Amino acid sequence: MKLIIAVVQDKDSNRLSEALVKANYRATKLASTGGFLKAGNTTFLIGTEDEHVEEVMSIIKDNCKSRDQLVAPISPMGGNADSYVPYPVEVQVGGATVFVLPVEQFEQY
Amino acid sequence: MKLIIAVVQDKDSNRLSEALVKANYRATKLASTGGFLKAGNTTFLIGTEDEHVEEVMSIIKDNCKSRDQLVAPISPMGGNADSYVPYPVEVQVGGATVFVLPVEQFEQY
Amino acid sequence: MKLIIAVVQDKDSNRLSEALVKANYRATKLASTGGFLKAGNTTFLIGTEDEHVEEVMSIIKDNCKSRDQLVAPISPMGGNADSYVPYPVEVQVGGATVFVLPVEQFEQY
Ligand code: NI
Ligand code: NI
Ligand code: NI
Repeated sequence: MKLIIAVVQDKDSNRLSEALVKANYRATKLASTGGFLKAGNTTFLIGTEDEHVEEVMSIIKDNCKSRDQLVAPISPMGGNADSYVPYPVEVQVGGATVFVLPVEQFEQY
Repeated sequence: MKLIIAVVQDKDSNRLSEALVKANYRATKLASTGGFLKAGNTTFLIGTEDEHVEEVMSIIKDNCKSRDQLVAPISPMGGNADSYVPYPVEVQVGGATVFVLPVEQFEQY
Repeated sequence: MKLIIAVVQDKDSNRLSEALVKANYRATKLASTGGFLKAGNTTFLIGTEDEHVEEVMSIIKDNCKSRDQLVAPISPMGGNADSYVPYPVEVQVGGATVFVLPVEQFEQY
């Protein structure tokens, strides 16, 4: 038995939840902030047997991995047109920090 | 030393807190959602020496275990009397998912 | 690799965050309540290599350790002047409860 603690960006949180449910894994979500990742984030607790750890890790990677995203330019309100970039820019979104912890005892009551 | 992580239903959370305090155990509570249990839930972190783990597990079981509860019928507002069941029904409430983790170092400052 | 879980008082939380960032450590913060400490508290998750554990523990201790603080007397509103103490009193603030957990696998995606 392992406890997987995954810190993911809020924007990937719902997608990850749905993917885990679909694959029949259960997760508890904790609201969290800052630190491992720049934006608001969610901490998932996922308990699973040893032989399913790699599958859960794949699901996390597939749904949360860091990637570049094109962001449409925002036209400047009022002044400051100097810093205006009139074409889409790439920003990095997503990313997950994942810890796999050993579990000595697991019970469901 | 062990760290016990217990995910319990919100409705059992206060009762569990009180039972732990009464038995002289200290817990930290984290608001959590979804996953292991269907309804809103609370995640307890309880640090304790190895020889007290079984007592803490008993307290969690006694206060949170899954059980059937009779729910009084709610009389239908307006229409839809078709689906009205005029006697109490049993629903399952409670339940706890508990992980016991090994602790390598424990400090209080 | 270790996962350090530290429960600290809310009033020390920002100071600890800043000290960790300055020393180049990343932490995730979870809002938590009650238990290990009397007042509102924050739970930090800090992942770090084995050789940095003692440095992180020192940073937590330096920024959160339990200490006495002089609190100015509050003049009684209306009656109850009997219990009024006209000089500053010492109260204990701060404190941290810290668990160091072994990590079997650590990934960043
Ligand atoms: Ni299986
Ligand atoms: Ni004892
Ligand atoms: Ni290093």
